[in-house]
Amino acid sequence: MNSPAQYLPYPALDLILERVIDIPPELVWRAWTDPAMITQWFTPVPWKTIACEIDLRPGGTFKTEMQSPEGQSFANVGCYLEIIENKKLVWTSAVGPGFRPLVSAPSLAMTAIILLELHGKGTKYTAIALHKDEQDRKAHEAMGFHEGWGKALDQLVAAVKRI
Amino acid sequence: MNSPAQYLPYPALDLILERVIDIPPELVWRAWTDPAMITQWFTPVPWKTIACEIDLRPGGTFKTEMQSPEGQSFANVGCYLEIIENKKLVWTSAVGPGFRPLVSAPSLAMTAIILLELHGKGTKYTAIALHKDEQDRKAHEAMGFHEGWGKALDQLVAAVKRI
Repeated sequence: MNSPAQYLPYPALDLILERVIDIPPELVWRAWTDPAMITQWFTPVPWKTIACEIDLRPGGTFKTEMQSPEGQSFANVGCYLEIIENKKLVWTSAVGPGFRPLVSAPSLAMTAIILLELHGKGTKYTAIALHKDEQDRKAHEAMGFHEGWGKALDQLVAAVKRI
Repeated sequence: MNSPAQYLPYPALDLILERVIDIPPELVWRAWTDPAMITQWFTPVPWKTIACEIDLRPGGTFKTEMQSPEGQSFANVGCYLEIIENKKLVWTSAVGPGFRPLVSAPSLAMTAIILLELHGKGTKYTAIALHKDEQDRKAHEAMGFHEGWGKALDQLVAAVKRI
């Protein structure tokens, strides 16, 4: 098999959050792959992630249930696509568990690429959201991608420091 | 990472072709992963596969161009999802190259799982087509899945024997 694909930036369709954080890749990986960690940081407060299911293998389920401040809950289900421990995690909401095509894709179907790179004693963290077209990228940006994913990352770091 | 996912049969949504063939898994693998082989067997005659592009890694492009007996051509593009050399190949038309969500999924979006198992000096060959719902499975069956994929497999075996 060839080496893993490199990400080629495509600014018109993608959103990127890049930051150096002061926890090592192994702990960022744990925060992303342990359901008991995900519920602590995945959704910017006052939203909550109240449930999480993870089957960490290609095609395995990644499911989260979010709750709005008003108490309404929303389930999101997708699957993992690529898993390189402590380095790269790719998941999507565009295909369902077991790689099965979806009956109806969510309105903002997205593939997320999380890249981790050792940086001093910390991590260079890169989160990329891939969209099908420019309209989806703009809609996601307008929903507050950078603020939301940035706040979630602050929560991730805080959750790891509580371990 | 956990071990690869096992396929759990779901007859209402899936179509399966299972057969023992008298060529070894390594050569079946080559027939599936070398563009110069694909063009020799992929489409039951009198249809032809006139071009093929393969980037054999998760998220890599799998593109074929088919030609009808009347000379009309049709391009199909998708990506690889799981690659275990000589054993398991998974690709889909439900997500595009680089795992990007598709602007418009094909009407019969499908994920294909090809399983190869050594059987004597030959191969136990299992090809599974996963659909989003029963309607798609029935449409694909009515289009002649079993005859078409069976005929293509005969052509694959013949092409390998010409190497």
